[in-house]
Amino acid sequence: MGEQFSGVQDCIDYQFSQVKLLREALTHSSYANEREGAGPDNERLEFLGDAVLELCISEEAFRRYPEAHEGQMTRIRSGLVKEKSLADVARTLHLDTFLLLGRGEETQGGRERDSLLSDALEAVFGAVFLDGGYAAAKRLILAVFESCWPEDSNVRPSKDHKSRLQEITQRKLHSLPVYRLVGSHGPEHEKVFMVALELSDGRVFEGHGGSVKKAEQTAAARAIHTLLSEE
Amino acid sequence: MGEQFSGVQDCIDYQFSQVKLLREALTHSSYANEREGAGPDNERLEFLGDAVLELCISEEAFRRYPEAHEGQMTRIRSGLVKEKSLADVARTLHLDTFLLLGRGEETQGGRERDSLLSDALEAVFGAVFLDGGYAAAKRLILAVFESCWPEDSNVRPSKDHKSRLQEITQRKLHSLPVYRLVGSHGPEHEKVFMVALELSDGRVFEGHGGSVKKAEQTAAARAIHTLLSEE
Repeated sequence: MGEQFSGVQDCIDYQFSQVKLLREALTHSSYANEREGAGPDNERLEFLGDAVLELCISEEAFRRYPEAHEGQMTRIRSGLVKEKSLADVARTLHLDTFLLLGRGEETQGGRERDSLLSDALEAVFGAVFLDGGYAAAKRLILAVFESCWPEDSNVRPSKDHKSRLQEITQRKLHSLPVYRLVGSHGPEHEKVFMVALELSDGRVFEGHGGSVKKAEQTAAARAIHTLLSEE
Repeated sequence: MGEQFSGVQDCIDYQFSQVKLLREALTHSSYANEREGAGPDNERLEFLGDAVLELCISEEAFRRYPEAHEGQMTRIRSGLVKEKSLADVARTLHLDTFLLLGRGEETQGGRERDSLLSDALEAVFGAVFLDGGYAAAKRLILAVFESCWPEDSNVRPSKDHKSRLQEITQRKLHSLPVYRLVGSHGPEHEKVFMVALELSDGRVFEGHGGSVKKAEQTAAARAIHTLLSEE
């Protein structure tokens, strides 16, 4: 079995101690269903590999873009791990030629299908993680995604919340937020101001702060959090 | 700063080399916005910690339930990492008492809010991961979720795809799938059968296999994959 899969191991530049994990990662359910004794399909490894990939990409995004907001990092990560990108990486690694497919799936063009290739790639990441640990999986993942990261200079530096919210509401609501001072309380030397921020869709976010500007920033931060969590 | 946070480090049973990471994990944006020099808020660490948590829980689910399908593992993971569960864990660790909150957020009950506590817990996981690596984060996460795992015996053992699909369509569509042999091809000794599986919502899935039963299994596996990916 080792020899049968030596080509893949050269392509991904990782030598398995437990080659049966690699075989499992490359076994599509259609193959496992068709043959007695084919062993398990790659769906459990895909589940694991998906999480391995997510952490490796998150860790690297965190390291590469020290000024990026979590929303920017989320978008970068989504771009890298989307099905089409993963399928392209799988093809670069020639995983398509090594996939174990059932005959029906084969005749229906499964070997070229993005979803199938993307699943297999994630399963391979899961297999490397089980075989060699987090460090080994990270080495492989960073190597194959090396050319996919946006330039740090294209990841806009951190701006204040009001400016960011303005960009987000223009993009999503084609309008700007409106701020209104609604009150203040506390003694003069530690007064707290309360501001209401209204979006054009009618939603209102409150913010408190030691100055009106701070209160507006707080309200804007909340609105950003809500708007980005809907994306 | 070390002393100020020694209580948290005792609660999570992890001593930081870089206590400033712990401080960042416990800094809500409302606090960072209100004070000059408060340092960064915990949103970047939350982004990272969310992925750390997901991998640790996925790895452990994979290990604990060797017979589980990826769909079952996904459901178990969702149950553990949902906001309410995370907030409860955060309270057990007394993170609420250590959170750095802005005054406005404080007066509005932010210290008790599930979303805020859940975010802080994820940020703490991210901080431990950066400070002590994957192994340290995993040790902490497995310790705090120790009592949350369902019994292995409650995670139903692997069944064949047709039985699983039957359960799923009864739950989701209140009906059973219908199988139909639509053809066969190839020489007698390696004939391939083709089956169409129809769901009550009109969707049809094809399956191929060396026997009608195998073809039905393949079609059922595809239907399961599609139905579960919609959940």
